[in-house]
Amino acid sequence: MTSLAQRSIDASATAEREQLAARYRAVRAETERRAAPLSAEDQQVQSMADASPTKWHRAHVTWFFEAFILKPLLPGYREFDPRFALLFNSYYVSAGPRAERAKRGLVTRPSCAEVGVYRAHVDAAMARLIAEAPEAGFGEIARLVEIGLNHEQQHQELMLTDILHAFSENPAEPVYDPDWRMPAPRGGADGAAALPQGTYRIGHDFAADASFAYDNEGPAHQVLIPAQRLARGLVTNGDWLAFMAAGGYDDALLWLSDGFAFAQASGWRAPLYWRQADGAWQAFGLAGLKPVDPDAPVCHVSYYEADAFARFAGRTLPTEAAWEAAAGQGLIEEAFGRVWQWTQSAYLPYPGYRPAPGALGEYNGKFMVNQMVLRGSSWATPEGHARLTYRNFFYPHQRWQVTGVRLADGA
Amino acid sequence: MTSLAQRSIDASATAEREQLAARYRAVRAETERRAAPLSAEDQQVQSMADASPTKWHRAHVTWFFEAFILKPLLPGYREFDPRFALLFNSYYVSAGPRAERAKRGLVTRPSCAEVGVYRAHVDAAMARLIAEAPEAGFGEIARLVEIGLNHEQQHQELMLTDILHAFSENPAEPVYDPDWRMPAPRGGADGAAALPQGTYRIGHDFAADASFAYDNEGPAHQVLIPAQRLARGLVTNGDWLAFMAAGGYDDALLWLSDGFAFAQASGWRAPLYWRQADGAWQAFGLAGLKPVDPDAPVCHVSYYEADAFARFAGRTLPTEAAWEAAAGQGLIEEAFGRVWQWTQSAYLPYPGYRPAPGALGEYNGKFMVNQMVLRGSSWATPEGHARLTYRNFFYPHQRWQVTGVRLADGA
Amino acid sequence: MTSLAQRSIDASATAEREQLAARYRAVRAETERRAAPLSAEDQQVQSMADASPTKWHRAHVTWFFEAFILKPLLPGYREFDPRFALLFNSYYVSAGPRAERAKRGLVTRPSCAEVGVYRAHVDAAMARLIAEAPEAGFGEIARLVEIGLNHEQQHQELMLTDILHAFSENPAEPVYDPDWRMPAPRGGADGAAALPQGTYRIGHDFAADASFAYDNEGPAHQVLIPAQRLARGLVTNGDWLAFMAAGGYDDALLWLSDGFAFAQASGWRAPLYWRQADGAWQAFGLAGLKPVDPDAPVCHVSYYEADAFARFAGRTLPTEAAWEAAAGQGLIEEAFGRVWQWTQSAYLPYPGYRPAPGALGEYNGKFMVNQMVLRGSSWATPEGHARLTYRNFFYPHQRWQVTGVRLADGA
Amino acid sequence: MTSLAQRSIDASATAEREQLAARYRAVRAETERRAAPLSAEDQQVQSMADASPTKWHRAHVTWFFEAFILKPLLPGYREFDPRFALLFNSYYVSAGPRAERAKRGLVTRPSCAEVGVYRAHVDAAMARLIAEAPEAGFGEIARLVEIGLNHEQQHQELMLTDILHAFSENPAEPVYDPDWRMPAPRGGADGAAALPQGTYRIGHDFAADASFAYDNEGPAHQVLIPAQRLARGLVTNGDWLAFMAAGGYDDALLWLSDGFAFAQASGWRAPLYWRQADGAWQAFGLAGLKPVDPDAPVCHVSYYEADAFARFAGRTLPTEAAWEAAAGQGLIEEAFGRVWQWTQSAYLPYPGYRPAPGALGEYNGKFMVNQMVLRGSSWATPEGHARLTYRNFFYPHQRWQVTGVRLADGA
Repeated sequence: MTSLAQRSIDASATAEREQLAARYRAVRAETERRAAPLSAEDQQVQSMADASPTKWHRAHVTWFFEAFILKPLLPGYREFDPRFALLFNSYYVSAGPRAERAKRGLVTRPSCAEVGVYRAHVDAAMARLIAEAPEAGFGEIARLVEIGLNHEQQHQELMLTDILHAFSENPAEPVYDPDWRMPAPRGGADGAAALPQGTYRIGHDFAADASFAYDNEGPAHQVLIPAQRLARGLVTNGDWLAFMAAGGYDDALLWLSDGFAFAQASGWRAPLYWRQADGAWQAFGLAGLKPVDPDAPVCHVSYYEADAFARFAGRTLPTEAAWEAAAGQGLIEEAFGRVWQWTQSAYLPYPGYRPAPGALGEYNGKFMVNQMVLRGSSWATPEGHARLTYRNFFYPHQRWQVTGVRLADGA
Repeated sequence: MTSLAQRSIDASATAEREQLAARYRAVRAETERRAAPLSAEDQQVQSMADASPTKWHRAHVTWFFEAFILKPLLPGYREFDPRFALLFNSYYVSAGPRAERAKRGLVTRPSCAEVGVYRAHVDAAMARLIAEAPEAGFGEIARLVEIGLNHEQQHQELMLTDILHAFSENPAEPVYDPDWRMPAPRGGADGAAALPQGTYRIGHDFAADASFAYDNEGPAHQVLIPAQRLARGLVTNGDWLAFMAAGGYDDALLWLSDGFAFAQASGWRAPLYWRQADGAWQAFGLAGLKPVDPDAPVCHVSYYEADAFARFAGRTLPTEAAWEAAAGQGLIEEAFGRVWQWTQSAYLPYPGYRPAPGALGEYNGKFMVNQMVLRGSSWATPEGHARLTYRNFFYPHQRWQVTGVRLADGA
Repeated sequence: MTSLAQRSIDASATAEREQLAARYRAVRAETERRAAPLSAEDQQVQSMADASPTKWHRAHVTWFFEAFILKPLLPGYREFDPRFALLFNSYYVSAGPRAERAKRGLVTRPSCAEVGVYRAHVDAAMARLIAEAPEAGFGEIARLVEIGLNHEQQHQELMLTDILHAFSENPAEPVYDPDWRMPAPRGGADGAAALPQGTYRIGHDFAADASFAYDNEGPAHQVLIPAQRLARGLVTNGDWLAFMAAGGYDDALLWLSDGFAFAQASGWRAPLYWRQADGAWQAFGLAGLKPVDPDAPVCHVSYYEADAFARFAGRTLPTEAAWEAAAGQGLIEEAFGRVWQWTQSAYLPYPGYRPAPGALGEYNGKFMVNQMVLRGSSWATPEGHARLTYRNFFYPHQRWQVTGVRLADGA
Repeated sequence: MTSLAQRSIDASATAEREQLAARYRAVRAETERRAAPLSAEDQQVQSMADASPTKWHRAHVTWFFEAFILKPLLPGYREFDPRFALLFNSYYVSAGPRAERAKRGLVTRPSCAEVGVYRAHVDAAMARLIAEAPEAGFGEIARLVEIGLNHEQQHQELMLTDILHAFSENPAEPVYDPDWRMPAPRGGADGAAALPQGTYRIGHDFAADASFAYDNEGPAHQVLIPAQRLARGLVTNGDWLAFMAAGGYDDALLWLSDGFAFAQASGWRAPLYWRQADGAWQAFGLAGLKPVDPDAPVCHVSYYEADAFARFAGRTLPTEAAWEAAAGQGLIEEAFGRVWQWTQSAYLPYPGYRPAPGALGEYNGKFMVNQMVLRGSSWATPEGHARLTYRNFFYPHQRWQVTGVRLADGA
């Protein structure tokens, strides 16, 4: 006979499971929602090695659940197709061989529709696992599911940036969503906020905080930050047009040496996706080609350009620590939901960082060289995925992400 | 009132138009037949710059009729979509700007289905033009239609070689047609045939012969050919395995200098699509991965390899003139329908060659450098497209076409 | 009439000038001493874009004095050859156009001997300037001379690393100095030293310390360093042989992702200059090809390799702050004079860093991206050029510098 | 006792040996004469992979005598330095391993002076061999010496074209010979000469003609040449300026497809070495930078440009057979001694061509793909090296040789 206390525990456990199952369904549905406007052909293409096809994203995030949760943890799970590991493993060396990254766009089979079936197969098994797994191991399962969902959310952002890049290569200028707009800011954003010198605690405290964070967001640690001022708002397209008009793209003295060489070799004259027609600048976006809005935050600029702009403006970019300290105290606006913000911090391990054991330890640590940290989030970041300690990272020449600029000085 | 003679002429003209319309429908249907086993995703991909997507082939050959026949010659013709010229012009500079060749695989829109509608639209207009064009200009129309159909047939061969290449890049090894087989030879093919020294007439005589030929097949002209012997049959996979076993791929002295450098840099150890598994060689083809058949003609070898093999065998490759003279006299077998045969002739204009006027003059002439001539035809060549004077041409390093080897000596 | 006090001041000023002149002569002579074993042909070659010819180094450092000191500050100075600015400006955009970096080896004229005459011409003018410049501006002159001498010392190290690379490309294995040896360590170097957590002051304090430092070594600032242990000695060739024997170069899980890709594409199996002969490893150095000494510090390894080795050893690399704090307290050995030590710190500006005004502001700041910091100094560093705050920096894939490894843990 | 007849034979044989020795000395001296204006630094550089250092040319032609004559045929010959085979073998696979072609400029040791000693060592041995070899094998020795001398003459031309390229990369614009001028033409050269259709015999008849020719010049054979007209003179700089003024470099329809792509990617706007200053065109040559002479033959143009120019002029380039037939009958002028003339013939074996046995068989045959034939000779061709049947060959994009244009029509 079950005691009342036991029933209460059971009820709580059941509620927790239902909550996880609901969250699982919601995140998975968002992926499909983002893919919905895209045809089978749209979902097939890979427009450059940095990007991946929509279909691949949809399958890869599904393989993640299959490989790291279902196969090891759901007794009797039937693998959907043993060839998928080869096709949809991204970079997990520990999880076996992978197809060549730059050739993801060549995998025409399975089809879009078959990937849909694959997703349903895994979703059903995940629902069963979440509902029926023995209580003993459920904590670990919940932890892995949370990683898988965050992983899928990361790919949701890439789905949009990747298809935008692919569409930008089509002379017929396809439209993903005619109603797409850059979200309006939450408030005015003039002037700068002062961050006083001091020792701040940054990063995610895994011991004290059970909410999800990637391993690279910790350990939480003290860092001594010198006094500085951070712009309350973002650099706008209008600001950028002034930089361009002043010859910013041609003035070597404004640029890092690598940056100027790359910009010249690439023929950069404006942010990615900007095109000049009849003397006016337009920007290609999810809604197609639209006039550049001078009040919107500048977007699709590389670290090299962001750094040159800061020098042009007599300023710097914030460090990631200053950004986190300032944002944590509510000193800055537009931190989330518009464009990611380049920092002047290289993507390196925090003191005491240790990658997670096993294949998931490859998630972040092995990329800690040659890249720069971005903070905040963008309009493409799915609801619930942004947080104060999030460390996004890209190479300093990359521009296809939703990358913008916040200025600082003193750092 | 129409005289009997006039009626007879009319009847003959009508029959000619019906014949042309029937031929048009047949060729166009063959294109769709070849595309039929392919999904929208399959038809989207471009696996390398040399290849094109199936969908692009289907649209490009249709644009050819629209741009060179319907728009100039069918009064009131409504262009299907003005953006298609940009998307589906291959290399006709005179016909306006073109999308970048290497990015054909990124054109996800129009979709496969829309390209089907485009084809139907053009087919309907072509049917009308063939049926209703005034008799005065009909001869010129028929001539252009014939070019368009030959052009489409050329792309039909490429559709198969290109999708084979794309499938070969998919680790899941898709199958185009499980029943595909290399056609059996028409007869025994041992030994060599002697071609006596003499002056031979080669090439297509446009003045005397009304049947279709490309401009590069003429003018017909005399050529002095020294005595030589041509192998009656083709080099087989078994012969090639002997070359490999003898270290042919590593022996610089067998190779042209450019060829050896290319082969080494590319890591060539066998024909394209051959893979070694458990000590045995398999070849990837339209039917998937199959054991190499030692009796079948070797295929998917470059000119460099063909030339090295000939040196290994103490032989040469035939010149294109000798090939045409010998084939014209029925001295050799397997000339058509199995694999194209590399010749030792560079692709150059025949004496007195002048490109056709206008955009169609770009069809052949501007490629007359750096390439080698192949003669005959292959299993992928559509029915009715092969002929004695046909000059196929590819770069000496290319292997994705259905390219094989016939030996000679004395040339 | 000169007062006694005035005479005393004069005497002191004269002594200061003589001291500077002597230091100038000593540094300049060291350059020639390093070039002396090299023929005109040896001094001509540039073996890769990263390296420069000896002759170019000798001329470039001379141009530095001419362009930044003599032309602006010595009245009546006669420029040696106006074309030399084009030939021997390295990367100072503000100082006018420059010949292409990768083509320095093509500048056969002026000859080696003419560069010697150029050096003498500039040395004579510099001697006159140091002796005769009005007292008012002498402080600034002394400051610039000091920069010029440090600049020349930096090139002295490059002269050796660059000629070693050039000689390594010559199948005849030329010898620069048959007596060259890696300097013996100053002491035993087992075990690790503990650096307690705390706030440390690092960097050069320009306000308080008149000795020379580059702009990138400041401002001095507080930094919070977590507790950690630094190896007292350097990783040896013997340690590296163990890493190789354990398959370190093939184990992707030990490597940064970029590092493994680069190492595989480059075919790395051992440090640069190591060659295997008859089963034993030899290293090419200034004394020619010699057996690898297992007790000597490993050298000519990239950051990627250093990082992989640290992971193999279950350790990390030190941060530059921890290195400086530990070295400043004498906790570690072999800090200077053997091999530079990679740190896990990206080369970024210190808080509050501002480049020097004018062309010399291009010296350091514009390289602050994509590179990693090395600390200490090497056997190739000239006497008197090493210091605690020195920040050397190279790309993580580069190996031709005298780069080695010190381990840490806890960072 | 020697009979009179015997003495007469001896005298004749001695005269033949003296003649060969004198010729040997003359050719060898010409090499040194061409190197004389060049410093040790000048002789060291390799400005691109296609070119070689002067020092390397001087050593390589010497190694040719050592490897193919002295070592096999002079008893007791002491090899000068066994490492030289590795350094100075160009591409003779049969003669053992070779240093990498693109790194010839890195071989700073042996020095220029040591190469001079090497040359003297080999010259002394060659003198001894020519004087003292037993009569029985002398014919073969004389044949090999003749090959070696022709080989050295070929390199004499390259010495000038290679150093011109190297000097063109030096912003200081070094001068090789201030008095260098394009030789004046031997006669007027207007109009065109008619070559009647017919069967002509071309190539070198090794059986009937004892004078030297390379293996690729034979066998002599009949070829049927259609009637055509060849320009009596060469295309001039003035003609070329008209082509440029008419937008020739931008008109895709004038060009071969590969040619236009290459020209655009390379930014070609004029012949190699032409530079525009103050609106006027100058050409860099052995005398330095000089105004372009409109009456001089155009030079340093690629096959692609030559072909485009011919199309612009409504003409063609001659075939090599037509060129040889016309030149053999004295129908054309300026055939020799000014600029090589591109033909529209690909470099392929003549019917019945068989490479010489042994390493010398690698001399020509293995390059018979991807290159185009040039006929005639240039101002850089050494005296006595030009002949009617000479087949020079280069890739269609190459421009650093002394390559010009003669037009034809009808071919």
